[in-house]
Amino acid sequence: MSDCIFCKIVEKEIPSTIVFEDADVLAFMDIGPIVKGHALVIPKQHHDPVTETPDEVLAKLFLTAKKIAKAQMNAFGAQGVNIMQNNGRAAGQEVEHIHVHVIPRFEEDGHHWNWNPKRYDDFDEMAKLADQLREQL
Amino acid sequence: MSDCIFCKIVEKEIPSTIVFEDADVLAFMDIGPIVKGHALVIPKQHHDPVTETPDEVLAKLFLTAKKIAKAQMNAFGAQGVNIMQNNGRAAGQEVEHIHVHVIPRFEEDGHHWNWNPKRYDDFDEMAKLADQLREQL
Ligand SMILES: [Zn+2]
Ligand SMILES: [Zn+2]
Repeated sequence: MSDCIFCKIVEKEIPSTIVFEDADVLAFMDIGPIVKGHALVIPKQHHDPVTETPDEVLAKLFLTAKKIAKAQMNAFGAQGVNIMQNNGRAAGQEVEHIHVHVIPRFEEDGHHWNWNPKRYDDFDEMAKLADQLREQL
Repeated sequence: MSDCIFCKIVEKEIPSTIVFEDADVLAFMDIGPIVKGHALVIPKQHHDPVTETPDEVLAKLFLTAKKIAKAQMNAFGAQGVNIMQNNGRAAGQEVEHIHVHVIPRFEEDGHHWNWNPKRYDDFDEMAKLADQLREQL
């Protein structure tokens, strides 16, 4: 897409610091890292969001993320890795070309995800949502 | 693994609210949802972390996450979805059996990920980390 910043990165119209590239995917450094060493994996073809991304493209993206995670462990001694894929502005997505964040983590890296679990009012509330999901699956 | 809570869920030794199940994967409701409707996708076989999970298992996990995301959009009218897979305690992982979080998001759901990008000191700092990654890829 002509106005997509990630398509321009694929076309090398916008520079990026590439760590991996093949016929299908590109991985490059996120210039605003959650933790230094944070990389992004994107398909060369424009797709968005996850639900509109073909299965074979999606599988390739996450298998590439696995490789990047391994490299972060080996290269940086990362003790953990977050793999995150956000869809929609409501989910924090900024660029509307599917991308997978691969973020190296360290015990003392100072980042916290604000993991703040809610509670269901009761079992029935959760069971009803599960029923609604099951109807769509 | 005999002491793994997710293996026990697969074996139905521990109850869960299942939304999808086939020969390879199980999807069930997270009882501590970041946003109500939050589901988890796990492989029936015990694997952990992502770097030790076979490619075909990993692909299946994320393709199932895609289906759950679509169902959350259709069933709940979710405006966004976070797909997140955490590896290691440093990354916030609690159960050491690979699992993919699929979290429905809404403009007014009140959740914020504490997305707090850092800055590299200079381009060279980022380029050096990229070089180190590339050597491992
Ligand atoms: Zn694009
Ligand atoms: Zn297990």
